[in-house]
Amino acid sequence: MIKGVNLGNWLVLEKWMSPDLFAGTEAEDETQLCSDLDDVAKRERLKVHRDSYVTERDFAYLANRHIDAVRIPVPFFIFGDYPPYIGCAEYLDRAFDWAEKYKIKILIDLHTVPDGQNGFDNGGICGVCKWHKNPAHVELVLTVLEQLTNRYRARTALWGIEVLNEPISQELWDVIDIPNRYPPRDPEYARGSEPVPTGFLKDFYTAAYRTIRAQSDDVTIVFHDGFRIREWDGFFTSPQFQRIIVDTHLYLMEYTFGTGDENLGGYLDHIRNKFSRTVQEMSQQFPLIIGEWCLDPMSPQAAALTREQRRRFYRSLGDAQLAAWDGAAGWFFWNYKLLINGSNLDGWDLGKSIELGYLPENIGQK
Amino acid sequence: MIKGVNLGNWLVLEKWMSPDLFAGTEAEDETQLCSDLDDVAKRERLKVHRDSYVTERDFAYLANRHIDAVRIPVPFFIFGDYPPYIGCAEYLDRAFDWAEKYKIKILIDLHTVPDGQNGFDNGGICGVCKWHKNPAHVELVLTVLEQLTNRYRARTALWGIEVLNEPISQELWDVIDIPNRYPPRDPEYARGSEPVPTGFLKDFYTAAYRTIRAQSDDVTIVFHDGFRIREWDGFFTSPQFQRIIVDTHLYLMEYTFGTGDENLGGYLDHIRNKFSRTVQEMSQQFPLIIGEWCLDPMSPQAAALTREQRRRFYRSLGDAQLAAWDGAAGWFFWNYKLLINGSNLDGWDLGKSIELGYLPENIGQK
Repeated sequence: MIKGVNLGNWLVLEKWMSPDLFAGTEAEDETQLCSDLDDVAKRERLKVHRDSYVTERDFAYLANRHIDAVRIPVPFFIFGDYPPYIGCAEYLDRAFDWAEKYKIKILIDLHTVPDGQNGFDNGGICGVCKWHKNPAHVELVLTVLEQLTNRYRARTALWGIEVLNEPISQELWDVIDIPNRYPPRDPEYARGSEPVPTGFLKDFYTAAYRTIRAQSDDVTIVFHDGFRIREWDGFFTSPQFQRIIVDTHLYLMEYTFGTGDENLGGYLDHIRNKFSRTVQEMSQQFPLIIGEWCLDPMSPQAAALTREQRRRFYRSLGDAQLAAWDGAAGWFFWNYKLLINGSNLDGWDLGKSIELGYLPENIGQK
Repeated sequence: MIKGVNLGNWLVLEKWMSPDLFAGTEAEDETQLCSDLDDVAKRERLKVHRDSYVTERDFAYLANRHIDAVRIPVPFFIFGDYPPYIGCAEYLDRAFDWAEKYKIKILIDLHTVPDGQNGFDNGGICGVCKWHKNPAHVELVLTVLEQLTNRYRARTALWGIEVLNEPISQELWDVIDIPNRYPPRDPEYARGSEPVPTGFLKDFYTAAYRTIRAQSDDVTIVFHDGFRIREWDGFFTSPQFQRIIVDTHLYLMEYTFGTGDENLGGYLDHIRNKFSRTVQEMSQQFPLIIGEWCLDPMSPQAAALTREQRRRFYRSLGDAQLAAWDGAAGWFFWNYKLLINGSNLDGWDLGKSIELGYLPENIGQK
């Protein structure tokens, strides 16, 4: 079982995780940031961030906590071809060097695509979700997956390639109310945005599988469930898919927002029933990873706890979730690190959560 | 006994500790960097670095390792008055917030002065050392010390103020051969550079003491020994000085460079004899801290060791030094963090040294 952590907000920026990087702009996502900053400022800001946010000493820290793997979100412009964005493949190269030195594996996770696959800020462009409607954009993403496979297939640290992070479902689109929760900067440009249909996703996943397999017989290929884990009956079990894994993201905030309940007992029941059952049932069908999870239920009550109360509260949520992942092929905490002042988001930061006793010191041995 | 670490290279840059910050320039020190970069680039580069290099999560890490205090090097332009430099007092403010939250103390260390007090790169301007010859510059530094005292005297995290880091002695000036080891960019400007005389230093230390004491009856005032620890007989013991501490920096590289010996036994003897004796003898005269020390003897032999050999070698040097500091008022490892790819400088990085087993996990309890 792989016990891992995401290196999010490194090569794909998320404003809530490092608001200082967005200072002096009105930007809410990386697309806006790269458009609003002048070229010198943009290059300086991104370079210092990328040079420093994750370095070798972080891999030493993770190895010492018996973390087996890191999931690294990368943007579609990793190879540097799309203004206003700045490519970043040399940083993923560095991560492979460090990973190999510390015997940590890497799951490359394609986290953004042109014109978006979910409308989230972390998709790179708020409120825009129409990548799947543009065949040229789809083709481009297949090319990026091919390039990623080619560049890293011989690296011993390569554990897998995830073809697309969080293509959004109709259900989640409605629940989150994407157009209002993540308003696009240019509503005209966002016109035509919509959830990614399951039919399209099956075709794309098939094409992505073939593209990657043509370059590598053995790399593990990971597919996000698209927030519709029960809609894949028979799909991933088809003999055409070998050495694949399905990724599902399980966040406690679903429960908070869905029920309004903020009691520890409610969360623990949800973890033991809903999370555990998902892991057990789905693992019967295909190898499953929980590619993202965290300690923070986004509960106003939890935010008001004293320090020691919060430690016990989060520790309970952490222990219960770690137990619930038993039987899965692996998990990746979201995230390794935030650059935030204050405590409200501590439950998203693996390093800080370990130091504060929210997670076990040797979390990878758990 | 205070067990601490330096937060160097945060508010006073040192190229060897984060070479990426100097990329695209020929600069060897912060003065050159701030002169060579255009205004936008300079502001972006420094802001992202200062925003991210030390954050609250680092204080959580240190508190969890029972570190009592941090020594924070600050530049003379902390309050932002001297082009081409950019002030940084808001970052020291943040450090006080974090320190108080995690019950860590702060020693503010004035690390640079206009026109330099040592000619080192870390003095901010390579090869220039003539601050003490300009009464207006000396007056300015007294004003900065007064401002620092005023701004932070009411903070519960304030442990002390060190009036001047490493004013260089004639002996060290000659041994290091400052003009050739740290060549000035503008030899004409550097003309007149020379070591800081003991007579001047006594006058300055007296004036600095009075300036700070006029603002605070109880803050601990720290004086670096100026690399001449045996030249202060009777000076700091004068009744005019109350609640003062003397800071000495003990680096193993002195032994390597002085003797050419690179054997573990030689280093251990040096630690037990020279370092220990200095601590014991000087502590009879005044409270003493070892304000800087590290694991790296700058030995080519050590650099060639295998990983496990190096771990054992550094661990021996670390344990021996920690034992040698017994009887001192405290110590501060140099440094908390480096931004370096590769391993040769691991022995300068407390975090990495702990993770690699070069230092005990709970170093502050040692």
